Amino acid sequence: MKKLLFLSIFLVFSAISAQEAIQLKSSVRHTIDELRDFVSIPNDALEHADINRNITWLTKKFNERGFNTSVLPTDGESLFFAALPMEDSKPTILFYMHFDGQSVDPSKWDQPNPYNVVLKAPEGDGWKNLSFDELNDDINYEWRLFGRSTSDDKGPIVMFLNTIDLLKKENKVLPYNIKVILDSEEEKSSAPLAKAVKQYKELLKADFLIINDGPVHNSGKPTVIYGCRGITTLSLTTYGPEKPQHSGHYGNYAPNPGFQLAQVLASMKDTKGKVIIDGFYNGITLDEATMGILKSVPDDETEIKKNLQIKTAEKVGNFYQEALQYPSLNIRGLGSGWIGDKARTIVPESATAEIDLRLVPESDGTRLKNLVRKHVEKQGFFITDKIPTKEERLAHDKIMTITEGTVTNAFRTDLNNPYGNFLVETLKNTFKEEVVQIRIMGGTVPIAPFINELKIPAFIVPLVNPDNNQHSPNENLKIGQIAYGIEVFYNILSTPKL
Amino acid sequence: MKKLLFLSIFLVFSAISAQEAIQLKSSVRHTIDELRDFVSIPNDALEHADINRNITWLTKKFNERGFNTSVLPTDGESLFFAALPMEDSKPTILFYMHFDGQSVDPSKWDQPNPYNVVLKAPEGDGWKNLSFDELNDDINYEWRLFGRSTSDDKGPIVMFLNTIDLLKKENKVLPYNIKVILDSEEEKSSAPLAKAVKQYKELLKADFLIINDGPVHNSGKPTVIYGCRGITTLSLTTYGPEKPQHSGHYGNYAPNPGFQLAQVLASMKDTKGKVIIDGFYNGITLDEATMGILKSVPDDETEIKKNLQIKTAEKVGNFYQEALQYPSLNIRGLGSGWIGDKARTIVPESATAEIDLRLVPESDGTRLKNLVRKHVEKQGFFITDKIPTKEERLAHDKIMTITEGTVTNAFRTDLNNPYGNFLVETLKNTFKEEVVQIRIMGGTVPIAPFINELKIPAFIVPLVNPDNNQHSPNENLKIGQIAYGIEVFYNILSTPKL
Repeated sequence: MKKLLFLSIFLVFSAISAQEAIQLKSSVRHTIDELRDFVSIPNDALEHADINRNITWLTKKFNERGFNTSVLPTDGESLFFAALPMEDSKPTILFYMHFDGQSVDPSKWDQPNPYNVVLKAPEGDGWKNLSFDELNDDINYEWRLFGRSTSDDKGPIVMFLNTIDLLKKENKVLPYNIKVILDSEEEKSSAPLAKAVKQYKELLKADFLIINDGPVHNSGKPTVIYGCRGITTLSLTTYGPEKPQHSGHYGNYAPNPGFQLAQVLASMKDTKGKVIIDGFYNGITLDEATMGILKSVPDDETEIKKNLQIKTAEKVGNFYQEALQYPSLNIRGLGSGWIGDKARTIVPESATAEIDLRLVPESDGTRLKNLVRKHVEKQGFFITDKIPTKEERLAHDKIMTITEGTVTNAFRTDLNNPYGNFLVETLKNTFKEEVVQIRIMGGTVPIAPFINELKIPAFIVPLVNPDNNQHSPNENLKIGQIAYGIEVFYNILSTPKL
Repeated sequence: MKKLLFLSIFLVFSAISAQEAIQLKSSVRHTIDELRDFVSIPNDALEHADINRNITWLTKKFNERGFNTSVLPTDGESLFFAALPMEDSKPTILFYMHFDGQSVDPSKWDQPNPYNVVLKAPEGDGWKNLSFDELNDDINYEWRLFGRSTSDDKGPIVMFLNTIDLLKKENKVLPYNIKVILDSEEEKSSAPLAKAVKQYKELLKADFLIINDGPVHNSGKPTVIYGCRGITTLSLTTYGPEKPQHSGHYGNYAPNPGFQLAQVLASMKDTKGKVIIDGFYNGITLDEATMGILKSVPDDETEIKKNLQIKTAEKVGNFYQEALQYPSLNIRGLGSGWIGDKARTIVPESATAEIDLRLVPESDGTRLKNLVRKHVEKQGFFITDKIPTKEERLAHDKIMTITEGTVTNAFRTDLNNPYGNFLVETLKNTFKEEVVQIRIMGGTVPIAPFINELKIPAFIVPLVNPDNNQHSPNENLKIGQIAYGIEVFYNILSTPKL
């Protein structure tokens, strides 16, 4: 088995010599040790003391590598900033990563402590635990490290630190100034970030931004992402009788809030899943070149559908990447009365739909929310942002309470941006294969404040495996991705932009 | 204040002399004492031992009044049966009441123990507690007894017992044979009743059935009810991706189960609340005479709407009583993903609507459920009664799991039935006012087994106040309704049917 895996490593990292492969492996080994140490410090952003302990660790580690570091106070948890000594003549790269992690429920993990990294090897459909001593013999790139934030996002931070070591060892002169900003509330939506970026604008000034967060494309190929969708939310509530009523006494007399809600929701989409609210998709055009890039992404849609267990996808785009170019309208929750064992024979007093809207640069969140609001109004609803008063109830047949969430706008860097070209070329040369270019990814990364304040191009260069169980129990990092990440950082940092 | 109330008593019971009023009051006083004793025995049908203790109490009390009693074993809790010695020449009345009660949550009551009756007087918008000693001075018919089952349905049982005492005291020769069947699982839908009525058919044989359960019409006027709607339920579930998915990654790609459900629900009713499923209202015709009876019910719809806080009722009928002549289609519950604080940005894996259908005699429950099923099929859904398999998911775009509840059919005795005429005339003569005749009430009383097996006319003659908080905390019985109930029983039992 070891032979086979040794071969597979050479397939992935075919661009490097045997000598370099050995050096890389030693760097991977050091990264594993340092990552175990880093993960052992809990990093739930709800625990202030934990965040501080992580900052102390980061300060020591970046200082050791010759960085100047600062702790940047914000309205919430502090940000961590590090920079190598600057030279005015060089372009500056700003790296964004985060060191906070999702909360853990240890009872749902296959290991006693999610902050205590466990080494595992694939076995059948599952995993078997290994002692870390096994790494002394040989490092198998199929093995994985299980623990909170191994992938999201402590792993990339430690890969970065070890790349700096490697570059120093080889006395490489870096053609860039390097700044690093590490977020402490990314898993809590980075609420303080917008204000902080404004406040520390001068400090953060750079020529382009690289975000090392999230997984590479499902195909496992090198990936550069030019943007991400934004998000906003709406909560829609309709009303029946003021208190739940016996469905015998008032069934087909008291208006049913569930039917009212169903009717307005049904009017928002056609049966194929396309939004039919006036103007919802306005402003979006996809030219031939763009369509080419979208089609070049090696998505296996048969596999995606098999995984989701769906026959047909919603017909917003003709294929997955095309669908992501449009804003979405999603019912993330529905509630009225009770369901299942708790169901009671009542006419409920209200019915609520929780909506999320994923945004693209052409669809401003506030504009979209107003379109939804207008659409509801056209169906004859009186709209309020509060629970309706008795007077309002007696004056209007159909009432909807609409409350709105905040808007995180989308961002998208031009596909022809020279820094983007540089990243794609560098990855292509490093791994000798085509780079997956994602024009916009479906999810939302809170990067908009950087784009808005610093006015610089931004790119997501993900480093970890797609099946890392991010945000869930049994989060993990494939050891091969550590080698991948070090190679990515090494080649970006040592290759001058043409 | 006492003078005013004394006056109001005379207004309600104007048909009786001052002498009779004093005798009635003494009977009311004894009923109160006996009801306190009866209520003190908890009667949650989930507690077998409590039900048995109630049966012991009933056996003693009915025996004391000269009844022969039996405990009738069933598949669940036993029924209680009592009968006065029979004479073949007389017609037989079967009375149905129940002695079990809804579960209690003492923390939600304004008294420490819901099984410990508390006497209260109205004060402002609320109530003030009184000592039972106050009843020695004078009985105020506006005062109320608070406790579980004071109204639903122990109160009527004790009124009945005290009426028998009164009739005996006056040496009345009853023109009827009297049988009494007391249910022990009414609040649990009387599941064992159907089989038991079949089993004890000979014992229960009678000329007509009087059900003393539920409140009189909201107007407080004497009320006779000829029928009640039946009920059945449906649970409808639609499907999205097999597991909840990140709404960024799969929003406008993975089908949303909430929209699918909304669209099929929306297609079942028009925007005014009328069911538009083919054939749903088939077979229902209301002739002029029937419309006359329906219109004669003194419903104050302005008041009903004010209480429900609705502007317009669903347009199934043109007024409340007319609406009740039709079956209903009610969404009693909706659920998908999470709402409120727990809302998460996911495409949920499923969405469920819980439906109840209230039935009228023209709309058989099984037929209506099949109409709904056909309607769903016409919208392009593949229907199953289980969670769909992976193969089914990959083979069909729209899947709905439909599960069905049992059917309790409606019953309705003809408005021209001579026993009905006798009851209406008797009440009219007793209280010297028009009797409210309800052709069918909205709720469901599990009486169908009697009607189906015994093939006798049935009537609901309710005795308690409409605002009795039945099934809820602070259930209560207005003392004036005790006097009313005794008068009703007394006059029915002592007036020969013409």
